[in-house]
Amino acid sequence: MNVTVLKNHKTFEGHTVFAEHDSETTKTKMKFSYFLPESGKPKSAIVWLSGLTCTEENFITKAGAQKYLAEKDAMIICPDTSPRGLNLPGEHDSYDFGSGAGFYVNALTDGYKDHYKMYDYVVQDIVAILESEFKVSKISISGHSMGGHGALVIGLREKDTFSAVSAFSPIVHPSGCPWGEKAFLGYLGEEREAWKEYDSCELLLKGTTRNDSLLVEQGTDDEFLKNQLHTDRLETACREVGQKLEVNYRKGYDHSYYFISSFVNSHIDFLCR
Amino acid sequence: MNVTVLKNHKTFEGHTVFAEHDSETTKTKMKFSYFLPESGKPKSAIVWLSGLTCTEENFITKAGAQKYLAEKDAMIICPDTSPRGLNLPGEHDSYDFGSGAGFYVNALTDGYKDHYKMYDYVVQDIVAILESEFKVSKISISGHSMGGHGALVIGLREKDTFSAVSAFSPIVHPSGCPWGEKAFLGYLGEEREAWKEYDSCELLLKGTTRNDSLLVEQGTDDEFLKNQLHTDRLETACREVGQKLEVNYRKGYDHSYYFISSFVNSHIDFLCR
Repeated sequence: MNVTVLKNHKTFEGHTVFAEHDSETTKTKMKFSYFLPESGKPKSAIVWLSGLTCTEENFITKAGAQKYLAEKDAMIICPDTSPRGLNLPGEHDSYDFGSGAGFYVNALTDGYKDHYKMYDYVVQDIVAILESEFKVSKISISGHSMGGHGALVIGLREKDTFSAVSAFSPIVHPSGCPWGEKAFLGYLGEEREAWKEYDSCELLLKGTTRNDSLLVEQGTDDEFLKNQLHTDRLETACREVGQKLEVNYRKGYDHSYYFISSFVNSHIDFLCR
Repeated sequence: MNVTVLKNHKTFEGHTVFAEHDSETTKTKMKFSYFLPESGKPKSAIVWLSGLTCTEENFITKAGAQKYLAEKDAMIICPDTSPRGLNLPGEHDSYDFGSGAGFYVNALTDGYKDHYKMYDYVVQDIVAILESEFKVSKISISGHSMGGHGALVIGLREKDTFSAVSAFSPIVHPSGCPWGEKAFLGYLGEEREAWKEYDSCELLLKGTTRNDSLLVEQGTDDEFLKNQLHTDRLETACREVGQKLEVNYRKGYDHSYYFISSFVNSHIDFLCR
């Protein structure tokens, strides 16, 4: 994969690393970070998908996951949230579309369809890096907000690739909230049938389920819960189709990385089980 | 003290808070962050002094200290590293002088002497906030790099105020390294006698010692160890005057917050003892 290491910081019993590679999927350089335990031969890997405006840096600097990963001899890999350096029309005009907001879809619209293929980037490039560079075969997926949406959608659709799925504060029904509607219109166009492939509630309702339970962590004081996240819609969809789901509503916690850091250990436990 | 809370994020069993107040010492608004355990009545408090270019945000978002503090029913308070919003001559020209680089001295030079009084700001304002707002009487001090220098100097000089002193990657002898010489010349002027009051090695050599042991954490792969930090000079000075000191050299770790996060728990143990 021609991965170039940019920085390497010893952290607990392991290394926090920033790297980049040329992606044939996005036709750009792509950056990612990872934590590799001291053994260099992790027993399992978590793919972490970050939220709007994030890069490969947010989770690995703020979540405090390294200690727990080192204890489990596990690694995590955190891709950037969009291709960079393209300057497509409208790409940098808002925080919730274009750069930093890839939404983990394969775009269909002009300009974007050639590069904004973050679904394939995660499922193909990131998984290939884990398998070829780190020889990991057990891979799970998690993420936050837009990345929680990505983890649920990818985890439901790619059952054979990902052994477990969790999410923090996910956008569970992007077709029915302002963030998702803006992104899907911009990346996928007006044909709403195409949107269903990237909407965890819609996927569930048409029978895309897993045998194992999904784990969701949600703060009750999350400023985006009512208008963007709609966690209850995931609960309803799961109930309707018999998908196992555990939602932990956490009283007083918000949408920030302070919330993620407070519960990341229990998700690492779940994902590495 | 007229403290205004700007943001409050529930974190583990407690709250990460960003706040500001009007300081009579710096004659500016000053920002700080703190973690307050759920009890609201912490048994002890740590003052954390950050390094060059930092604000009140770096430690509290990156060090992963909240879990350990909550377990100990302890709080930490992290002041900004300089006054802001002044636009003094030369204040924003470089990363290692002026804004973000207050060096925890009381400046003597024109322009700076009216505002850059970060020594007094820590010893008076921050301590007063801890005592009046949080009713804490047991206070310790720690910091990183420039803030490690600040913690050592303040901890040696203000024995009655601070019950314990530790530092990560401290600048132990600012009078004898490029960062310190630039800052001291700019804030204190050419008279080197005045510099000694803000140099931990010089303070020790003229008899300013503590009865308890200082704790220092230092990465062996720290990119600033040889030219700026000179940890060995602190060891020599302590040995000469009989000051107890524990230096933990950590193999492979660098100057970053990844290093701090790896050992912050043991310093919290030490400082709250």
